[in-house]
Amino acid sequence: MKIVNLDHISANPILPEVQEAMIEAIKTNYGNPSSQHKLGDRAAEALDKARNSVSRLINCSGPQEMVFASNGTESVNHALKGVAFAKGEKGKHIVTSNIEHNAVLRSLRRLKMMDYQVTSVPVDNKGRVNPDDVEKAIRDDTILVSIMHSNNEIGTIQPIEEIARVTKKKKVLLHSDAVDSVGVVPIDVQKLGVDLLSFSSNSFYGPTGVGGLYVRRGTRIWPLLDGGVQENNKRAGAENLIGIIGMGVAAEATMRDLESRIAHAKKLKETLLQKLPDYIDEYYINGDPEHSLPTLVSVSIKYIEGESIVLLLDEENIAVSTRSACAAGALQASHVLLSIGRDFADAQGTLVITFGVDNTEEDVLRFLTVLKDAVKTLRDISPLYAKLAQA
Amino acid sequence: MKIVNLDHISANPILPEVQEAMIEAIKTNYGNPSSQHKLGDRAAEALDKARNSVSRLINCSGPQEMVFASNGTESVNHALKGVAFAKGEKGKHIVTSNIEHNAVLRSLRRLKMMDYQVTSVPVDNKGRVNPDDVEKAIRDDTILVSIMHSNNEIGTIQPIEEIARVTKKKKVLLHSDAVDSVGVVPIDVQKLGVDLLSFSSNSFYGPTGVGGLYVRRGTRIWPLLDGGVQENNKRAGAENLIGIIGMGVAAEATMRDLESRIAHAKKLKETLLQKLPDYIDEYYINGDPEHSLPTLVSVSIKYIEGESIVLLLDEENIAVSTRSACAAGALQASHVLLSIGRDFADAQGTLVITFGVDNTEEDVLRFLTVLKDAVKTLRDISPLYAKLAQA
Repeated sequence: MKIVNLDHISANPILPEVQEAMIEAIKTNYGNPSSQHKLGDRAAEALDKARNSVSRLINCSGPQEMVFASNGTESVNHALKGVAFAKGEKGKHIVTSNIEHNAVLRSLRRLKMMDYQVTSVPVDNKGRVNPDDVEKAIRDDTILVSIMHSNNEIGTIQPIEEIARVTKKKKVLLHSDAVDSVGVVPIDVQKLGVDLLSFSSNSFYGPTGVGGLYVRRGTRIWPLLDGGVQENNKRAGAENLIGIIGMGVAAEATMRDLESRIAHAKKLKETLLQKLPDYIDEYYINGDPEHSLPTLVSVSIKYIEGESIVLLLDEENIAVSTRSACAAGALQASHVLLSIGRDFADAQGTLVITFGVDNTEEDVLRFLTVLKDAVKTLRDISPLYAKLAQA
Repeated sequence: MKIVNLDHISANPILPEVQEAMIEAIKTNYGNPSSQHKLGDRAAEALDKARNSVSRLINCSGPQEMVFASNGTESVNHALKGVAFAKGEKGKHIVTSNIEHNAVLRSLRRLKMMDYQVTSVPVDNKGRVNPDDVEKAIRDDTILVSIMHSNNEIGTIQPIEEIARVTKKKKVLLHSDAVDSVGVVPIDVQKLGVDLLSFSSNSFYGPTGVGGLYVRRGTRIWPLLDGGVQENNKRAGAENLIGIIGMGVAAEATMRDLESRIAHAKKLKETLLQKLPDYIDEYYINGDPEHSLPTLVSVSIKYIEGESIVLLLDEENIAVSTRSACAAGALQASHVLLSIGRDFADAQGTLVITFGVDNTEEDVLRFLTVLKDAVKTLRDISPLYAKLAQA
């Protein structure tokens, strides 16, 4: 039976044209881009071509600002630790927000173990950071501000341009984790005004295990991986050339298709939000209706437990998640939902639905039908729900 | 025209069965191994299968000791920095050798910038480390010894078992960079007695951009990439699943074929060494005839410049290198050749020839014929050679 994938934030399918390019690359058997002969030249050309495509996708001022990585997490670690280590003598203070992805949270926790200090600014009940709070948090020893572009659990998009005005004024570097934004909404590093921006290939239908880090020319950063002179001396080691070629083709497809992808997702999201009240009651939609990923709906359903819903839906071949796959092994309630004011129980009853190019209106209707039954089943066995019903 | 690849250390071709598995993986469109539904389950199974194969290749005591990485360089960086950071409170001294790969050298240089201290032991004129020198170098504050298994420029294999006896006695961790050994010679982490071992998929005909780090159970190490709970909490971030699946199949092929690969390489190496005097004169063979990679020949040819030979051979569609591709961008003379006592001029005149499963005796003969002409051409225009010839 066909699986209805409404968990695109965990993994997007690889586009057919990207698959073709990767298969061709596998068969071509490229050499090592760093070697000194013909076998290496072909590889170096393929690498350059992909770098050009990907750097155009986010409007780098040149391909040398694009550093390929093994995933978005590596890009984030590189940005945070690379800047922290390079500028540690200037200061050891970093500003971030309360709702960052684990890659940011845990990189910063690691830096705290190395005597760095972190100030985390709150978000409002829609999940938005106030740029004034960022400005107030910046100290004389602040070296870096890291605020995500969009949130992976509630879809809220942050006012990065306004935050960049603050960091420019204060002469502090700005990094944005845009792993869930690049390929989903237009991203232009010049317009955003960021110094560093992390993203990942699979978010725009390239392979998993390939990422990118934009590093504005002149930004002081240490490599995370020391060794050879690859990636303009910013990231040593043999390249995942097959994956990078796939990312390049995915970037080209995204530049061509982004508008229609957004229109498609918006329509599905609208359908879901409009019809949801006909299928379930007592729920909240999380996030900011105005500044939000077009592909993501986060819904907290009262008196149920999200993990159980995921299992019941999975039995019916529908894939959704309770939060990003990266945190799926963790048992705590989502720090993002608690930060926007949800209580522990509602946070536990939250589903994240993410649309992709392969979804249809029928998928949404099928999901709603199965969801309705699943919610009923779970509420029927919920002691809390039974007590409230009697009252 | 067919290119004769005698630079397998820069890049091995991907085995046909590995290509097939990777193409199948691309078409399968696996999900995210960390997600909670069927799409994730299939991915997690594929990841487990590959981890089992790769961990058996080097005889881990269990698959949980195998941490996938994005290349050998990442594995090396993880081993060195991960142990240095985790054990920094116990001590900040690390012992290594004079002829390590750039990934080790530069990771250690980076750690020196963070107040770590490094003692580098010499090698003899065959490139071998004396285990007694390692023992003498270990201090009370030594936390780690890192000695490569085989050298990427001269092929010398180190006495890792003897060094492991020293580190065990001294209660210091031992890492070995085995990037150029795993898949080329038998590697058994139990027999070697190492605590950490770095390697890469392409060395055994898997894709580039995938690596592995063996971490003996109970070894204290920090992740290099913080974020999600992937890789037993040792390496966060979305996996390069297509590459990892390829690495798994390559590991299975290697367990099956290693003996015949070694026999094949030995025969080619023997032919080359036997016939070389018929084609050129005034050269040295570098390395240790007894403890050496069967696939590698390093030859220092007097009165010529290696880079020029590489270019002349490339014109004739023969790929060789002057040293590993990772250092190809660097202009200094090889620190490895200087360490074994070659002078600057001889170091500059050095070629590294590395055989692979696709090479034939004819390749060797063609190489020798072209080499003879190339050496003559270059010596004819060498002022130094002209002067010596007149004398």
